[in-house]
Amino acid sequence: AIIVYRLPWTWKCSKLLMKFIHAGLNTIAMILAIVSMVAVFDFHNAKNIPNMYSLHSWIGLTAVIFYSLQLFLGFAVFLLPFAPVHLRVALMPIHVYSGLTIFATVIATALMGITEKLIFALKNPAYSASPPEATLVNCLGILLVIFGSLILWMASRPHWKRPPAENAKILRPTGATPEGTEVESTMTNSSNADKSDLRSNTEAARKQNIKFDEAGQRSTM
Amino acid sequence: AIIVYRLPWTWKCSKLLMKFIHAGLNTIAMILAIVSMVAVFDFHNAKNIPNMYSLHSWIGLTAVIFYSLQLFLGFAVFLLPFAPVHLRVALMPIHVYSGLTIFATVIATALMGITEKLIFALKNPAYSASPPEATLVNCLGILLVIFGSLILWMASRPHWKRPPAENAKILRPTGATPEGTEVESTMTNSSNADKSDLRSNTEAARKQNIKFDEAGQRSTM
Repeated sequence: AIIVYRLPWTWKCSKLLMKFIHAGLNTIAMILAIVSMVAVFDFHNAKNIPNMYSLHSWIGLTAVIFYSLQLFLGFAVFLLPFAPVHLRVALMPIHVYSGLTIFATVIATALMGITEKLIFALKNPAYSASPPEATLVNCLGILLVIFGSLILWMASRPHWKRPPAENAKILRPTGATPEGTEVESTMTNSSNADKSDLRSNTEAARKQNIKFDEAGQRSTM
Repeated sequence: AIIVYRLPWTWKCSKLLMKFIHAGLNTIAMILAIVSMVAVFDFHNAKNIPNMYSLHSWIGLTAVIFYSLQLFLGFAVFLLPFAPVHLRVALMPIHVYSGLTIFATVIATALMGITEKLIFALKNPAYSASPPEATLVNCLGILLVIFGSLILWMASRPHWKRPPAENAKILRPTGATPEGTEVESTMTNSSNADKSDLRSNTEAARKQNIKFDEAGQRSTM
């Protein structure tokens, strides 16, 4: 879901379709998260294991709560057509930062969960004797870290952003415009899907962008 | 060390002094990491605990190895005066990404270590009975996550970057110039500390920046 906006084949889709894919994938992930939380509590209750005692559970539940907030706010602000453009501009950097931070936190939570499970499940031979299961699951943990690093790399490369045609491209860095032009989007029309030539009002748009960007940044402190 | 370039009081220092502070703090952290690794291996050997069996140890050692590489490359490329400017420009996004990813990985490793230690150390009452120690250390783990999130927030805000006066500001996003001007640095002189007015060659510099930026990005794939 994070890298939907980073895949060249999606650049041909409309902005709205991409938003739907992004929101849809995240909704599926949220449903799976809720199902797995119910499964964990049921498992703990069935085995008489206390709930919510471990750091894994604390951080995991915090991440799920923030994730549902992120999903709700993203839906209300970016998908529904009611939020004014300056609100979208102000919230976009927070939305991106929260999404990536929640993603990293979820990876960390998974690694803690793997550690716990290996310690609890491997008894004879113990985890410390490095049985094949331990090595295998350690490798899966390493793969999880590599996966997380790759996603964060893709999400943070400016030249992998969608080429500028619309309003959400306002915060793109200078060096990222594909052909070295300085096309920046305007901020006045939030529903207009495709604009081909924006060079004429580049300067005005840029100044407005800076203003909005600064306001957005300031509102987060 | 990560946020040295994000603190307004350091903006008055010279570029070289800031680099020295950044490199110095990271060198201190590297020394502490080595000391703690030696302590861990000594502790394991003294207690007859196998070394390097846990996911915590695998990811932790990987992070330390990458950290030492990062330190060595950073020293060779950015601190010593031998590296050509285009190499610095190409490596800077990788350096920033690696630094932040290693930082996040180290936080995750610490959380795994805390989880392990709580499980191993708390026996009567056990970790699952939530004794006061468990709650306290869980809170410390949460604080670690909050700390990591704050550092990543500070490091990723464009308007907290140093105002443009020098070459390393090439990759700054458009919306981040403090007074809404479009001052961009040139890339020709890497030792010149303070330039007050760069507006005259903004356009040429920007085009060059884009070229270098794209080349730098491409070289990472």
